[in-house]
Amino acid sequence: MGKRKKAVILVVNDDGVDAAGIRILASVAQEFGRVIVVAPGGGRSGMSHAITFSNPLRLRRLHNSPECEIYKTNGTPADSVKLAVRHLLKDQPIKLLVSGFNHGANTSASVIYSGTVAGAVEGCLSGIPSVAFSIVNHDKDCDFEAAKVAARQIIASVLEKGLPPNICLNVNIPNVPAKDIKGYKITRQAKNHWSEIIEMRTDTANIPYFWMGGTMQEVDKGRDTDHWAVTHKYVSVQPIDIDWTSKPMMKELKKWKLTV
Amino acid sequence: MGKRKKAVILVVNDDGVDAAGIRILASVAQEFGRVIVVAPGGGRSGMSHAITFSNPLRLRRLHNSPECEIYKTNGTPADSVKLAVRHLLKDQPIKLLVSGFNHGANTSASVIYSGTVAGAVEGCLSGIPSVAFSIVNHDKDCDFEAAKVAARQIIASVLEKGLPPNICLNVNIPNVPAKDIKGYKITRQAKNHWSEIIEMRTDTANIPYFWMGGTMQEVDKGRDTDHWAVTHKYVSVQPIDIDWTSKPMMKELKKWKLTV
Repeated sequence: MGKRKKAVILVVNDDGVDAAGIRILASVAQEFGRVIVVAPGGGRSGMSHAITFSNPLRLRRLHNSPECEIYKTNGTPADSVKLAVRHLLKDQPIKLLVSGFNHGANTSASVIYSGTVAGAVEGCLSGIPSVAFSIVNHDKDCDFEAAKVAARQIIASVLEKGLPPNICLNVNIPNVPAKDIKGYKITRQAKNHWSEIIEMRTDTANIPYFWMGGTMQEVDKGRDTDHWAVTHKYVSVQPIDIDWTSKPMMKELKKWKLTV
Repeated sequence: MGKRKKAVILVVNDDGVDAAGIRILASVAQEFGRVIVVAPGGGRSGMSHAITFSNPLRLRRLHNSPECEIYKTNGTPADSVKLAVRHLLKDQPIKLLVSGFNHGANTSASVIYSGTVAGAVEGCLSGIPSVAFSIVNHDKDCDFEAAKVAARQIIASVLEKGLPPNICLNVNIPNVPAKDIKGYKITRQAKNHWSEIIEMRTDTANIPYFWMGGTMQEVDKGRDTDHWAVTHKYVSVQPIDIDWTSKPMMKELKKWKLTV
């Protein structure tokens, strides 16, 4: 009879294993159990749910991190979760996956582009209660106190209550000191989208190349959105369904009476 | 007064500009107007909604394709749409975006990983009526007749009826001859997920690397799913909402009474 293995908490991100955010989230997670960090070796922002099956993946333990087991991968956030769940922790129960703290908001259309959110969705696809955490601040040295308070409370609640199958959480923490947080809002994803600026430049051989930039278009004025919450000093908690189907539109499409 | 520009149809994919599927979809689209193809230079399967903003993008016209304007990019499907919409066709109305024909099903959890679906979602985020098309066959030389029939009918319907904001379509065509298609099913995304096999190998320096493979776990037995439809010889039409929020779970979470 083998020793029963204790359930672990898996921590992932998209800013890479060296980012301040993941170290801090891992330290919060350690208050709730044994933590394993498996994250990309470098920044993978904007990678969404990309996975790697046409190239070899690598997984290497970092030995200069006594505080917990940390592994870096050459893959995306979703790859990192797969390597952790299907290889590294294959025989171990995983009681929770947390992704983040992402440096920057993952609200509105950014939810779709986010590797941090994809990390949580991938955990959810593997049947693990999963939560993505982002702070609305890109500064590496920003104040994480509000984020820590929120993460602590959400982790405790998820471990206590669980999450239904096929649902994960996307949590965004506003850029204010912990004492100024007004509370939590359960939100939907705002229907705001990026308006890209594609800047054309030329290289030294005079061949054009393009840099992508953009600004968020705040067209959704709803007060029930993730964007509204974080801009009004609330922690936004968005439940994400891995089934993206529009049920109302199913009804509409049936009226189209498509036939062969 | 400038000449009023005629609306174009934008064609994108994730298998790359050289794939048979995109050439055939472009030829169907040409029956409905002027077509511009902007697609990755090579395969980008599994890239999901990844975007590139930390590296330069390239866009180059292929001049060996008299049938329509074809451009290749070094980016992802979503990058290709952005380059088309925000740069190449900046001053031109785009009446439709079609993504595909993808070689292989984009049903169940594959919807989440798919670059083909992301191409349509990106079009939708830009306010363009957008449809992803996939055939349930990986064979390069497979029979596209059923796919052509379905695409023709869906394109005609979308151009006639339009699509609401923030909704796009994900169409999957079963692997049968056109005459054996039983009809269309309006579907939801099946809650089936991949079970990955991570195969560890060692390189010539004896360092481990990993190849990802997997099989789809058919746990969702619903008869209203995309997977059910294509395995029963129906064309699956799934409406996708760009807002992934679970509205039922919002209600549940409010009961958690999270407070600061």
